[in-house]
Amino acid sequence: MTLTQPTLLLDEERCRKNIKKMADKARKHGLVFRPHFKTHQSLEIGRWFKEYGVEKITVSSVAMADYFSEEWDDITIAFPTNILEMEAINRLAQAITLNLLVESIEVVRYLGKHLKAKVGVFIKIDVGYQRTGIAPDAKDKIDSIISLITSFPKLDFKGFLGHAGHTYHCRDVDAVKEIHRQSLQHIHLLKAKYPQAVISLGDTPSCSLADEYEGVDEIRPGNFVFYDLVQHQIGSNTLEEISLALACPIVALHPERNEVIVYGGGVHFSKDRLEDEVHGTLFGRVVEQHGKGWGKAIPNVYVSKLSQEHGTIVLPEIEIQKYQIGDLLLVLPVHACMTAHAMHAYHTLDGQIISRL
Amino acid sequence: MTLTQPTLLLDEERCRKNIKKMADKARKHGLVFRPHFKTHQSLEIGRWFKEYGVEKITVSSVAMADYFSEEWDDITIAFPTNILEMEAINRLAQAITLNLLVESIEVVRYLGKHLKAKVGVFIKIDVGYQRTGIAPDAKDKIDSIISLITSFPKLDFKGFLGHAGHTYHCRDVDAVKEIHRQSLQHIHLLKAKYPQAVISLGDTPSCSLADEYEGVDEIRPGNFVFYDLVQHQIGSNTLEEISLALACPIVALHPERNEVIVYGGGVHFSKDRLEDEVHGTLFGRVVEQHGKGWGKAIPNVYVSKLSQEHGTIVLPEIEIQKYQIGDLLLVLPVHACMTAHAMHAYHTLDGQIISRL
Repeated sequence: MTLTQPTLLLDEERCRKNIKKMADKARKHGLVFRPHFKTHQSLEIGRWFKEYGVEKITVSSVAMADYFSEEWDDITIAFPTNILEMEAINRLAQAITLNLLVESIEVVRYLGKHLKAKVGVFIKIDVGYQRTGIAPDAKDKIDSIISLITSFPKLDFKGFLGHAGHTYHCRDVDAVKEIHRQSLQHIHLLKAKYPQAVISLGDTPSCSLADEYEGVDEIRPGNFVFYDLVQHQIGSNTLEEISLALACPIVALHPERNEVIVYGGGVHFSKDRLEDEVHGTLFGRVVEQHGKGWGKAIPNVYVSKLSQEHGTIVLPEIEIQKYQIGDLLLVLPVHACMTAHAMHAYHTLDGQIISRL
Repeated sequence: MTLTQPTLLLDEERCRKNIKKMADKARKHGLVFRPHFKTHQSLEIGRWFKEYGVEKITVSSVAMADYFSEEWDDITIAFPTNILEMEAINRLAQAITLNLLVESIEVVRYLGKHLKAKVGVFIKIDVGYQRTGIAPDAKDKIDSIISLITSFPKLDFKGFLGHAGHTYHCRDVDAVKEIHRQSLQHIHLLKAKYPQAVISLGDTPSCSLADEYEGVDEIRPGNFVFYDLVQHQIGSNTLEEISLALACPIVALHPERNEVIVYGGGVHFSKDRLEDEVHGTLFGRVVEQHGKGWGKAIPNVYVSKLSQEHGTIVLPEIEIQKYQIGDLLLVLPVHACMTAHAMHAYHTLDGQIISRL
């Protein structure tokens, strides 16, 4: 396969190892593994999960639920229900086991009125991230929402769903574990009051690093399928576990300032950035090419700037001499979910092209 | 038209005004107007430019040149030539008047060897941005590149192309004008030595704000077709000239912390950000809805955070009371080029859907 443009490489072996490891961990702790498919958004990669026993999935939009409903019949949309998409929600609810997320009386009432088939309902609990959800100690609000849910025959109260997205601000394993411990405390309060409720937790750092899942019924990590530099900074994965790299053609060499310019910009990587003490701001790290794939990250070789199509790569003098215009640089992404979304397909190392939504 | 998902609204009237204003300015200064189409990437919007006399365009990838070659026969690819795409470049060179950008002996030699039809060649000059290009005072290098270009019958030396992208760091009009003045100084040196060379300059801030174009032959601004909050911060445009807004459904209200959550995240806006003294970091500003379009920006109502699909909007208490779940918020983008690229189509205010590459 000759690559001529920015191309998203997927190391299937690394990817499958990540899937197997998480599936094994869920099994070990007796948890339902309901992975978040917003990261890869691909039916083909989804099929790999089936080989490790996965039967239920999570997505973050009605459009993704629609796409995956072709091959999956139990899907949770882990995003506050967008009532404007009622028509599509009804179509899905009639076709598969669909779970929706609510956090307000208004949305429950709207669903109760407009649903044409039964759906499962999770109440979003804010375990501390402060993006969406109800505070776990807002008992009156939770009680009144559950009571309204149970008053509608088309709504089936399933349980509570939390996402500790604040683990993304952690820079070490202990900090992630501390947030996870706090999430569990919140969850135990809810579980004590509503013992039948399913408890669903989700973020990749907690699911990668924590070892204690008392009171939890299912986990919904997504990013782990690829991992990335943000997750590596948090401590969720080694660099060797990252299964995506963006191959970028070198188009200009600037040895006078230790830089090369690649065809590969914000429209390919996304503009998500990482701050660290060594590099300052970076948008990716360059790895050694090994055969059809890649090996270790090259020290001090990283993407320092991104324009729409240009990427600026910093290389020490000794490295820059190894490259010429027309070579490809392979770059580990800062945020795999965003890079995967920005690109239109995955290229496996043996030349297979995998499409996505 | 009922909008149910994040939708990119285009105010055609504002957009056409922006096009006309820049076309008039180019005409007034006797400049060839070769707009950069990477911003809108749409054949339909491109046709509007024809109504204002535009006959030549700029793009930033071979893929874009290919797309626009259906309706345009004079295209400059203002990106360092990616020699890996030689096959596609040859196809284009045989079909239209194609101009390429070079900044090294290696690429000129490669083109000389592999081109199957004549192309125009611009030498990229670094007017101070330090992304790509040759220093304007590197006379020996420039001489040797020109001499190599002229030695190949398929290469036609056209002139020098500069992009003062460092105007994007300016925060007032005088700073932009000072950078433009420096660009002109560089250009005058080159023009003195190579009087036949075409001089092409490009960034939207300089083209919007400067009044002096002595020695310049053509301009290549792109962003001005939409403008955005970054350009507004620089001083290139008023907020009323911004012709794009992203309509986002409200999915959750959090009056306890003056926030609402919309369906509209990094995959819709892009993750480009703006820093200002009033808001800190922001990813968009909310405007008042007027009829089918929009009016003024609402003070202190802005996008403070973006996840993959979630946008967090900050609203003062008095504003939040006006909204309910299922309403749309209209948001001016921080960087229109990136938001337009992230979305798949434009919706005009009268309900027409305009596609793009």
